[in-house]
Amino acid sequence: MSNESAEDRLIARYFGPLAKRPGALGLLDDAAILEPPPGCDLVLKADAIVGSVHFFVDDPPDAIARKALRVNLSDLAAKGARPLGFLLSLALPAEVGDDWLAAFAGGLGADAEQYECPLLGGDTDRTPGPVTVSIAAFGSVPHGTMVKRSGAKAGDRIVVTGTIGDAALGLLLHKQPDAAARWGLDASMREHLRERYRLPQPRNAIADVVRRFASAAMDISDGLAGDLAKLCRASGVTATVDIARVPLSAAAQAAVQHERSLIEPALTGGDDYEILAAVAPQKLEAFCAAAASFGVNLTDIGEIILGDGAPRFVGRDAQPVKFARPSYTHF
Amino acid sequence: MSNESAEDRLIARYFGPLAKRPGALGLLDDAAILEPPPGCDLVLKADAIVGSVHFFVDDPPDAIARKALRVNLSDLAAKGARPLGFLLSLALPAEVGDDWLAAFAGGLGADAEQYECPLLGGDTDRTPGPVTVSIAAFGSVPHGTMVKRSGAKAGDRIVVTGTIGDAALGLLLHKQPDAAARWGLDASMREHLRERYRLPQPRNAIADVVRRFASAAMDISDGLAGDLAKLCRASGVTATVDIARVPLSAAAQAAVQHERSLIEPALTGGDDYEILAAVAPQKLEAFCAAAASFGVNLTDIGEIILGDGAPRFVGRDAQPVKFARPSYTHF
Repeated sequence: MSNESAEDRLIARYFGPLAKRPGALGLLDDAAILEPPPGCDLVLKADAIVGSVHFFVDDPPDAIARKALRVNLSDLAAKGARPLGFLLSLALPAEVGDDWLAAFAGGLGADAEQYECPLLGGDTDRTPGPVTVSIAAFGSVPHGTMVKRSGAKAGDRIVVTGTIGDAALGLLLHKQPDAAARWGLDASMREHLRERYRLPQPRNAIADVVRRFASAAMDISDGLAGDLAKLCRASGVTATVDIARVPLSAAAQAAVQHERSLIEPALTGGDDYEILAAVAPQKLEAFCAAAASFGVNLTDIGEIILGDGAPRFVGRDAQPVKFARPSYTHF
Repeated sequence: MSNESAEDRLIARYFGPLAKRPGALGLLDDAAILEPPPGCDLVLKADAIVGSVHFFVDDPPDAIARKALRVNLSDLAAKGARPLGFLLSLALPAEVGDDWLAAFAGGLGADAEQYECPLLGGDTDRTPGPVTVSIAAFGSVPHGTMVKRSGAKAGDRIVVTGTIGDAALGLLLHKQPDAAARWGLDASMREHLRERYRLPQPRNAIADVVRRFASAAMDISDGLAGDLAKLCRASGVTATVDIARVPLSAAAQAAVQHERSLIEPALTGGDDYEILAAVAPQKLEAFCAAAASFGVNLTDIGEIILGDGAPRFVGRDAQPVKFARPSYTHF
């Protein structure tokens, strides 16, 4: 008689190979051991993704796994932290089979390698609901150097990595596939936007750069407008953003040119997983150059100013634009 | 116009007051900061509980919160670790309202105080499924001293804290309330068993004692028989347990006397959240005395022996008992 449970076998088969750190104890103990790097603080983040809420249940399982890890990696990057590892709590409906799990574990393992963020432990459970992937990720920074939301000062420039709004437009396209023609998108533009929703590209490559230069930072997960408002509130300031300077991909530009109102979901819709940072003006150039050396483009979109209202997003007519809903929220 | 989202307000109202450590940054940043105690290893554990799987959806919300934290605290206790804090990922169906959340946060906060394990961060999400509470808990041990499953040696005595099987019988009673009469249980016995399922009593009081004396340990969450098998497998040994010595509460004793077959769910059903430990025979007395000084009873139930099969559970007739399903598993 085997005295291994089906759950033990599932863990050993699919997740054991991902647990490469000695402190993970091969996932064969109740808990993992993490020896903190000397002189460092730990940076801790937990974020879950839920089927039909954060991803489509028929998304490829490897992309679901990657998204679950990457939304957490994105926070570590914005805080200037290097990944140390993660814990996984995976709740699975009964219909999930071996093929799904193998693909999920494959995607998770590939990202754990790529981002040097190994699986340390976790648990698997049944759920009568959708697949739910809860990850707690850990990183390290030299003591006292985590980049907070609260350090922005009046006069700082506001920068963002990459392009903004792709994922929000990609989600709209998922829901209304026929919009692609109306927005003037060719097949590759359509696929670009959808893929930006499906698979975030977190900016861990420049975590050290953010830590060296940014006075405040956060990742953009709930929309640029709402997340900038959070950063400003935490810093006791406000901001003004020049909408024309917000970097858009070719696909997002085409969509907005065809339907001007799409600028609102682009700036408020979320799932960008880019970094929003404030930087002292005299450091701006060096910040951009350092990020560029890692292949990451930074764009200066506006300024931190004194005040405490919501940040102003200014259009081409120099008039502030009002958003119906400045930030994505589930509640 | 307020620029705070409903989710921000929910977090600020219900969970902000629980985030008392400076490193939690009042839940107003993307991540938390944990300064590891010098000379210590971190012990990391993630465990989730899912509505209709690990608790009844109409259980009191404060008990759901406490159970979610305590199943993790129980692992820290068994590893000899002192709690440092936890991250919470909470997935909520739309029908959960303010009263439920207030009670949930109240229970969580009370346990965070009692076990000195503060909330450090986390996230809230909507789910089309049941309430899902994913917790990642962190503890510390002096470097190199985490108590593993793998340290048991032939000749060690096997001890357990408290009483075994109450929660499994309590779960059966939940499903078949009329069994109480058949099992000869009075109202207080019935309530005792049901409460043991609803609200674990983790043994964090003796974490330091476990670390000083145990050669191996784990918490009993999936049933004594299956969990002892796991400990033995990790240690490369097997064991023999005298069923008559397994400590049962008065309620469990009464039930088993009325229905002999109940000994099987008692020994295999799980949710005990007691500690199972191996201890060198010459340390047994001191281990028991030290635990007793914290009000925790240890019972010697058997011996670690050479070999590699499933542990033998021996009945009053000196014959080994075979269990249909030695361990609780969701899969």
